[in-house]
Amino acid sequence: MGSKFSLLTDLYEFTMAQIYVEKGMEEEAVFEFFVRPDGKRAYYVMAGTQELLEVLDDFCFGEDEIAYLEQSGEFSQKFLDYLRDFRFSGDVWGMVEGEVFLGGEPVVSVRAPLPQAQLVETILINTLQHPILVATKAARCMSVAEGTTLVDFGLRRAHGKDAGMRAARSSYIAGFAGTSNMLAGKEYGIPVFGTMAHSFIMAHEREEEAFERFMRRYPNNSILLVDTYDTIEGTKKAIEVSKRLGIPLRGVRLDSGDIQSLAPKVRRMLDSAGLDEALILVSGGVDEFVIADLLAKDVPIDAWGVGTKLVVSEDLPSLDCAYKLVEYKGKPRFKKSKGKVTLPMQKQIKREWDEQGLFKEDVVEMMEAMPEGLLQKVMEKGKICYRDSLDQIRERVAKRLSHLPSHMLELQPAKPTLPRLGPKLKTLAKELGILS
Amino acid sequence: MGSKFSLLTDLYEFTMAQIYVEKGMEEEAVFEFFVRPDGKRAYYVMAGTQELLEVLDDFCFGEDEIAYLEQSGEFSQKFLDYLRDFRFSGDVWGMVEGEVFLGGEPVVSVRAPLPQAQLVETILINTLQHPILVATKAARCMSVAEGTTLVDFGLRRAHGKDAGMRAARSSYIAGFAGTSNMLAGKEYGIPVFGTMAHSFIMAHEREEEAFERFMRRYPNNSILLVDTYDTIEGTKKAIEVSKRLGIPLRGVRLDSGDIQSLAPKVRRMLDSAGLDEALILVSGGVDEFVIADLLAKDVPIDAWGVGTKLVVSEDLPSLDCAYKLVEYKGKPRFKKSKGKVTLPMQKQIKREWDEQGLFKEDVVEMMEAMPEGLLQKVMEKGKICYRDSLDQIRERVAKRLSHLPSHMLELQPAKPTLPRLGPKLKTLAKELGILS
Repeated sequence: MGSKFSLLTDLYEFTMAQIYVEKGMEEEAVFEFFVRPDGKRAYYVMAGTQELLEVLDDFCFGEDEIAYLEQSGEFSQKFLDYLRDFRFSGDVWGMVEGEVFLGGEPVVSVRAPLPQAQLVETILINTLQHPILVATKAARCMSVAEGTTLVDFGLRRAHGKDAGMRAARSSYIAGFAGTSNMLAGKEYGIPVFGTMAHSFIMAHEREEEAFERFMRRYPNNSILLVDTYDTIEGTKKAIEVSKRLGIPLRGVRLDSGDIQSLAPKVRRMLDSAGLDEALILVSGGVDEFVIADLLAKDVPIDAWGVGTKLVVSEDLPSLDCAYKLVEYKGKPRFKKSKGKVTLPMQKQIKREWDEQGLFKEDVVEMMEAMPEGLLQKVMEKGKICYRDSLDQIRERVAKRLSHLPSHMLELQPAKPTLPRLGPKLKTLAKELGILS
Repeated sequence: MGSKFSLLTDLYEFTMAQIYVEKGMEEEAVFEFFVRPDGKRAYYVMAGTQELLEVLDDFCFGEDEIAYLEQSGEFSQKFLDYLRDFRFSGDVWGMVEGEVFLGGEPVVSVRAPLPQAQLVETILINTLQHPILVATKAARCMSVAEGTTLVDFGLRRAHGKDAGMRAARSSYIAGFAGTSNMLAGKEYGIPVFGTMAHSFIMAHEREEEAFERFMRRYPNNSILLVDTYDTIEGTKKAIEVSKRLGIPLRGVRLDSGDIQSLAPKVRRMLDSAGLDEALILVSGGVDEFVIADLLAKDVPIDAWGVGTKLVVSEDLPSLDCAYKLVEYKGKPRFKKSKGKVTLPMQKQIKREWDEQGLFKEDVVEMMEAMPEGLLQKVMEKGKICYRDSLDQIRERVAKRLSHLPSHMLELQPAKPTLPRLGPKLKTLAKELGILS
């Protein structure tokens, strides 16, 4: 049996690897994965490391995959035999999940025989990008949430099934209370939340009938959706039903309309009815900008369903990320392509803190000159040697966010925070004519 | 064995469905899936229908899923038994894949007992949205490609594994020549293309050595990446190697720099060397706007690797799409939420053409008044009754695009093209106070 995803790879990885294998270019190579600064994020949150390690551990080819490669006519028996026996046997360094990082610094490095390190490129980028995107977006939401509760409602609009799973996990580690996604609840042990859909209201002849039925069935957990026909009228009915049944409302959900004007009215109505404990949950187009804006205006909102804009990372739907060769046969490798220069040699990162314990800067240096730092060995000779629980990762994110200086917490950072190059790396880059 | 994805569903689908089942609300309901107009697309391309039917066909719950639901304490034995026996037995109407459609018109409708139609909501939206997004983006690229060749290079930056698969399939049906994704090649029979990465150049001591090795190994199929150090110097070397080996270059790839100024220089160099047949392939940040811009300036480009911006649909990373109850127990259902009004009753679409055979308008009418139209029965009593080959779908897209009027082919449409409401639907909407 091959891995389900070893062919989920760009063709050129195979054509290049074939030459490496046939020509005996199997010396150790180091590739680094990094995100280029984009002007929209002052920091990123690491995620996906553990899934990556599982993918690498599982990377192999069965007869089915070999047969497909063979019938293409492009591959030699020597190379197909190589793939038949393929197991990833390299070392991997990485940031642990939940760590905060900067654009331009390596966050995963792979040291392995050249064809191995090459063949895993596509799936490595695919596995890391989306979790980082969503964890970062979710952390930005948390950083402006002022103690309100955030829940991932994005499954339906995620770009696929695994995107929905990754979004639930990434937002949870960033501090979300949970997700609407049941499978994520089951697989990851994440708390699952839900309210009701408009269809539930519409399937009943009268709105109050729908509310009553729901509250009777879920007396401790009814968040009623009040905007199907008219938000204020809906809220009135929700309150009436709650009084009639003698069951306190858990909350109401507002999914449309002018939230800034509606939420205070709804709050006053709830409070006047003695329902001070009832939550106002807002959904529909929510992201960090909406949360920050409404909370800055003191709009009384207790919880948010954050959906589409989170899971597709609407304002930044992709990272300019890359996996680049930096070292082969112990020698520096780099490219000078316009606007896409890469620096050579395997690197390490050291983080500096100021007197208040806040993030000060990251120094990127050649690993041989600075062996210890933020990048730790997460796989050794193909064996996974890193595992954190979701709660450990979640605590790490919370701690890191609390130690970021205010300029890095701006939602629209004035300028990117970049790592500083260490002296050895700088000297090398100058010698090689990469930096002037 | 349950389906792998029946729990990949929002919790509220289950809490609502439980009430429906316990209260005997199992009469027939009709839900419709549609995309709200967004100002960025004049038309959309239907995709994902077949995957959706497979998902519905496979939607069931195994003991593992039941056990998870049971331990949550929210679900009764009656409902769990209902889920144990669950098979989707409804009728589904849909647009066939490759059909062009407008914002605001239904493209899939589900008629099934209420709890069934409700439970499939989340996975239905998840399954349709991304394929439509990418097929539409790819069609826009094709509509400005002027006969140049487009290839999907987006796998690495897709939001997950299945997003990469869907992107390859959706761009192929929209007219792309193929993909870099090997698994899509294997699973869908799509042509697979590849060039080489910068790492291949960097792993050799000299650029020309890398070129020579690649051309010797793949004499009929070498598209050399020339921008690792300097595009003009790289092109010179590629030409020298081609001459020395006596093997005509298949092409060069430009992945960085000012393409508008570089491509004509590279073209002249190739032509002067007698390599008129050599392609120039451009990659890196390509989308319909880049293609249209460079071709309008007569920049000599033969082929494009379209990656990230395609697979995440960068300028529109999500559709404002919904699945709404329109009919229950034969009676009209609708909502009036601000900005999110829905029209009641199951609908059908009739397309009108002008004298030149170009798209004129779509009329949306109640299905009972207009049974025949663009929505056809694709599933009957839970049995799939629609299947097109990828090539049929691909031909359909090409034909439809060739029959769109110029105002719908504008990349930035001045105003959305909306469907017209048929007289019966209009009258009903007025009677119900939804339209004035």
